[in-house]
Amino acid sequence: MQFEAPTIPPFDHHAANDARNRQNALTKPAGSLGRLEEISIQIAGIQGNPRPVVDKKSVIIMAADHGVCAEGVSAYPAEVTPMMVKGFLQGKAAINAISRYAEASVRVVDIGVNYHFPDDHGLDHCKVAYGTANMTEGPAMTPEQCLKAIRIGMQIAEEEARDGVRLIATGEMGIGNTTASSAIISCITGLPAASVTGRGTGVDNDGLNRKVAAINKAITVNQPDPCDPLDVLTKVGGLEIAGLVGVILGAARNRIPVVVDGLISSAAALVAYELYPEVRLFLLAGHQSVEIGQQAVLERIGIKPILDLNLRLGEGTGAALAFNIIDAACRVLNEMATFTEAGIATSA
Amino acid sequence: MQFEAPTIPPFDHHAANDARNRQNALTKPAGSLGRLEEISIQIAGIQGNPRPVVDKKSVIIMAADHGVCAEGVSAYPAEVTPMMVKGFLQGKAAINAISRYAEASVRVVDIGVNYHFPDDHGLDHCKVAYGTANMTEGPAMTPEQCLKAIRIGMQIAEEEARDGVRLIATGEMGIGNTTASSAIISCITGLPAASVTGRGTGVDNDGLNRKVAAINKAITVNQPDPCDPLDVLTKVGGLEIAGLVGVILGAARNRIPVVVDGLISSAAALVAYELYPEVRLFLLAGHQSVEIGQQAVLERIGIKPILDLNLRLGEGTGAALAFNIIDAACRVLNEMATFTEAGIATSA
Repeated sequence: MQFEAPTIPPFDHHAANDARNRQNALTKPAGSLGRLEEISIQIAGIQGNPRPVVDKKSVIIMAADHGVCAEGVSAYPAEVTPMMVKGFLQGKAAINAISRYAEASVRVVDIGVNYHFPDDHGLDHCKVAYGTANMTEGPAMTPEQCLKAIRIGMQIAEEEARDGVRLIATGEMGIGNTTASSAIISCITGLPAASVTGRGTGVDNDGLNRKVAAINKAITVNQPDPCDPLDVLTKVGGLEIAGLVGVILGAARNRIPVVVDGLISSAAALVAYELYPEVRLFLLAGHQSVEIGQQAVLERIGIKPILDLNLRLGEGTGAALAFNIIDAACRVLNEMATFTEAGIATSA
Repeated sequence: MQFEAPTIPPFDHHAANDARNRQNALTKPAGSLGRLEEISIQIAGIQGNPRPVVDKKSVIIMAADHGVCAEGVSAYPAEVTPMMVKGFLQGKAAINAISRYAEASVRVVDIGVNYHFPDDHGLDHCKVAYGTANMTEGPAMTPEQCLKAIRIGMQIAEEEARDGVRLIATGEMGIGNTTASSAIISCITGLPAASVTGRGTGVDNDGLNRKVAAINKAITVNQPDPCDPLDVLTKVGGLEIAGLVGVILGAARNRIPVVVDGLISSAAALVAYELYPEVRLFLLAGHQSVEIGQQAVLERIGIKPILDLNLRLGEGTGAALAFNIIDAACRVLNEMATFTEAGIATSA
């Protein structure tokens, strides 16, 4: 399977160093703002601006359904996917409340929901298919579907960039998508399915066993090549995960920092990273999810979560919460006085 | 030493239970928003409102100097205290940038700075003394000074309550105040000074040794009674710490949740808690500080930090950052639809 490579610009170490020097000159002990300082320096390097600004923020929610739901892997029926999409459009879901607080827009994309949305205001109609096929019986997607979903995500990131968005969060909705995500993570990392699979929306022990069994069966049936991330994504992934791979690559191409949410978003980040390792410096991990598979991804990519609030909802909620920390970090860098500006002598 | 007891109202378990029931009915798997859910439920119980709101927020910065600076316990000269106070008033410090982002007001109180502020706009002139005495040679404060500082803090919290403030963060500035704070914590917890003393603004190993030696000497010289928190506060504390004890008690009396910042604020919270254990439910820990003594306090009180960002600046920065998470938590509770409202059936 071929994939047209996006040109990811180099991380701007000059801008990052300028930001670091300014952090060290601000009226505070050097390093005393810890992660805030690191975050502002990283954003400076991504944007290529020593005084980075993240005023315009966007959460991209990719929604899709999963054929693997037939294996009883979720606590909720698949019909909840379109219902939650309607909730996003009505502004009534958790991600809406959190995004309003962070002054971030929410873009909802139907990239593969098993439901026909006729005239839902505000929905991006980009349906590639009415859900994936059941990956325990064969590939979840065709290679063409997978590539199409990635391209849609890249296109959406391009549009956001043209709209002046300077910070993007990855969000998703799709009953069954923790199973697909854990399958991707298990394949690529080589870790046993059981060690990267959690309870998702809250399945009981039997449900958890069904998830692990479905993942193992899907891997056995499809034999995805762990060294070919697109093969893995196609065979055991999902349309919203592929879409988020595209969002991540498209954002990086436009020097937009991407805040990765929980397990599903991290699975997408893993695929993007395996395809283009240079994407790493454009990624921030919004939070440490309860879902155990996420940690394996963050460790492999080498990024540290900003928040740790025992979240396991998805939708982009943890990433949108982290928007607040990232924005505050950039404002501190921009708005604080240096010791020289403030006329304060230091003993250092 | 006598102390007029504030009447701390009971935590409203009825309002908290109503909030919990609503959290469990919202369109998300129950518990999937983790700490956000817990925070909103706690705020409901504090405010006595099942739909809590924290729209008006305030950071109270108590500033004071410390005689113990003569022992070489800080990387910065004491003259930095008034200079930083001026920076707060000019809106140029980290706490200003972070508070602006969180839409919180910043109230700066001179409760004991060793400097005469003639006409600084916006400063609360409440000076009890021009800094504390050197606690290695005798008590840091007189009992009268300590009580006066507590009463000032309570009065300020009363004023904030009358102004409609619904969320308060404790902040402070005072070169030398990590030494006083670690002394308080060592006394009350019985932990060795070395195990609750950190590098503060960034002293080297010699400086750290001087801090521990100063604390041990102050405790030997003053013999504070570990079972009498006011005696400890008076003898080895500080005016801004006493002021924050008052802020915490005054806020709790008015059903205002208090977000505790780092080491110094936590030392104040510890004193308030030892005086009135019922204050515990009114406290939130904004963040896990780099300063090791803070963790001992949080464990003793039994509160968990919201953020962990390797901060060690103080000023209220970690608490004001946590304002964003707390506000978002309350908005999620208020703005989300329930499954019934959204017309979504669940399998549960």
